[in-house]
Amino acid sequence: MRGQLRTLWRDGTAPRVCIVDQTQLPHAYEELALERVEQVAEAIVNMRVRGAPLIGVCAAYGVALALEADASDAALEAACSRLRACRPTAVNLAWALDEVRAAAAPLSGAARAAAAWSAASALARADELACRRLGEHGLLLLREARSRRGGGPVRVLTHCNAGALATCGLGTALAPIYLAHAEGLEVFVWVDETRPRNQGLLTAWELERAGVPHALVVDNAGGHLMQSGEVDLCLVGTDRTAKNGDVCNKIGTYLKALAARDCGVPFYVAVPDSSFDWSLPRGVGAVPIEERSEEEVRALWGMQDDGNAAAIQLVPDGTPVRNPAFDVTPARLVSGLVTERGVCAASPEGLGALYPERAA
Amino acid sequence: MRGQLRTLWRDGTAPRVCIVDQTQLPHAYEELALERVEQVAEAIVNMRVRGAPLIGVCAAYGVALALEADASDAALEAACSRLRACRPTAVNLAWALDEVRAAAAPLSGAARAAAAWSAASALARADELACRRLGEHGLLLLREARSRRGGGPVRVLTHCNAGALATCGLGTALAPIYLAHAEGLEVFVWVDETRPRNQGLLTAWELERAGVPHALVVDNAGGHLMQSGEVDLCLVGTDRTAKNGDVCNKIGTYLKALAARDCGVPFYVAVPDSSFDWSLPRGVGAVPIEERSEEEVRALWGMQDDGNAAAIQLVPDGTPVRNPAFDVTPARLVSGLVTERGVCAASPEGLGALYPERAA
Repeated sequence: MRGQLRTLWRDGTAPRVCIVDQTQLPHAYEELALERVEQVAEAIVNMRVRGAPLIGVCAAYGVALALEADASDAALEAACSRLRACRPTAVNLAWALDEVRAAAAPLSGAARAAAAWSAASALARADELACRRLGEHGLLLLREARSRRGGGPVRVLTHCNAGALATCGLGTALAPIYLAHAEGLEVFVWVDETRPRNQGLLTAWELERAGVPHALVVDNAGGHLMQSGEVDLCLVGTDRTAKNGDVCNKIGTYLKALAARDCGVPFYVAVPDSSFDWSLPRGVGAVPIEERSEEEVRALWGMQDDGNAAAIQLVPDGTPVRNPAFDVTPARLVSGLVTERGVCAASPEGLGALYPERAA
Repeated sequence: MRGQLRTLWRDGTAPRVCIVDQTQLPHAYEELALERVEQVAEAIVNMRVRGAPLIGVCAAYGVALALEADASDAALEAACSRLRACRPTAVNLAWALDEVRAAAAPLSGAARAAAAWSAASALARADELACRRLGEHGLLLLREARSRRGGGPVRVLTHCNAGALATCGLGTALAPIYLAHAEGLEVFVWVDETRPRNQGLLTAWELERAGVPHALVVDNAGGHLMQSGEVDLCLVGTDRTAKNGDVCNKIGTYLKALAARDCGVPFYVAVPDSSFDWSLPRGVGAVPIEERSEEEVRALWGMQDDGNAAAIQLVPDGTPVRNPAFDVTPARLVSGLVTERGVCAASPEGLGALYPERAA
């Protein structure tokens, strides 16, 4: 693997946050410097930064940028509400904002921004560590799958991008895969295209960069691959996981979980602590599902023959479109949750054993 | 509805078959005249004509064109094998070729081509009639759904295109919808985009032309829509249905059937007689699944800003791709088969009752 991918970082001590613009990948690699909270909000809304853990950390830095410009209570509150409203589904965003506000609110003047920078950086480091821990626990599952299979690579199907691009570390769902690859355990990844935003291209880009064998498939293909015995396990991320183990993730995850259950393929979800919503007794019918712009379905970004990237309109203007961005997979379809503390059943009991302080 | 859509027709008595080039829709409407069997084969392979019933009829006309050029036994056999090899999954193709060969083979000279034209035209008329009959039986299901629902339109989810474009008539899965619309029964259709070839755009184009309310969604969305109670029934076509009721159809159909079962939504398949493979005791693991070109996943056709249609490359050259084109939905997930003879259970018993001559 080439050096660890950087997706979001501070630019020295300047009041500035740098990101890789994920809307340009895989066709172009561009870094952007964000200097104002409005730029951070725009980057989150338009998914220049994306992935539940990453948008949380990015929003935290956005509060620091806001406080650099204006350290008043009103500015702090305005920044937090503005950023919180950017994306409704991933719980990490609200959680990270609460953390950074709690650090900054008791202070005043320049100390506020300093505390926000410090809290945001702590969240970034914590996310990196969470990925590593998740990865080590998930690696055990890959080793088990390897033993069950005997020869050949462990074939993992993943949906969307829950990799380094979505976090400040190795990723969530992809962390065990990177660790397996690093220790020489053969892995092969089926990468769902993940319409409408095609985040599978981000996953393929990351895996290619790291030298992990993979193949991209359309979202329709996973059921057939599982039925044909070509998938050893599924491993996905989550934007919000409820207390009963119901998993909200990118739209289409539920369909893969159904196929996994029907075909006897284990279906695991990687959940950093920041993606649990302990206030939610269950997820089905309860997680707010973001409806995003029709344009995401209508148009696509790619390379023209002349080597320039351009948008093309797939769906004519007159055709009505609906674009729900997430779905909820009921806990009964989830074989286990891969957390920072270990792997557990997707149930109140399973989670209660690992997170006793949340069981009340 | 505007006049019945013509997808494939004879050009008077000239030795020529005309088609609508479905690779250009919905961005451009182009008719093509096919005068040689090689052109017919090219049109089938590259999906200028597509849809299980339509490729059968089109191939039958291809045999007539071959016999116009050379009425020898060798030419007849060569045409049939060439056309049969164009697409391996849909059984209609082999069936239609057998029909037209049986009509032509006993004759010689000019009578051979004449018999082939006549047999092909008979297949086209039979397909039109089959669509109408299927439609009438399926209409009863929509009326029932309407009664169950009370107010509001009956919301049908469909996958791929099993409409007028895929047949010589009203379509298979779409026939009941057109008949319902014609009698004033309110219908709303969720149209799966249907990657990789995006045949959902063909369905949306047809429905728009006929004035049937609809919305396009990505293939990932159907599970969420069913879980949210926004789908009253699913209705799809098939490329090959086995004797036990297992249904082979466009890749991704199986995932929607799983979601329908999980959410208590009825899942129906429209099967003209020409799509049954009575020689196949079951479909799972038995139907040959066509693997199509990676290019179908890599590149897409759409409109540029300047109003010209163009291809754009989505997936970089270095990214490996797999592209299975069909999957098999086990009969246990199918609520019923809508056939020319009525609606029956997807089981040997259900089919045996409607097709006793095949039950042996």
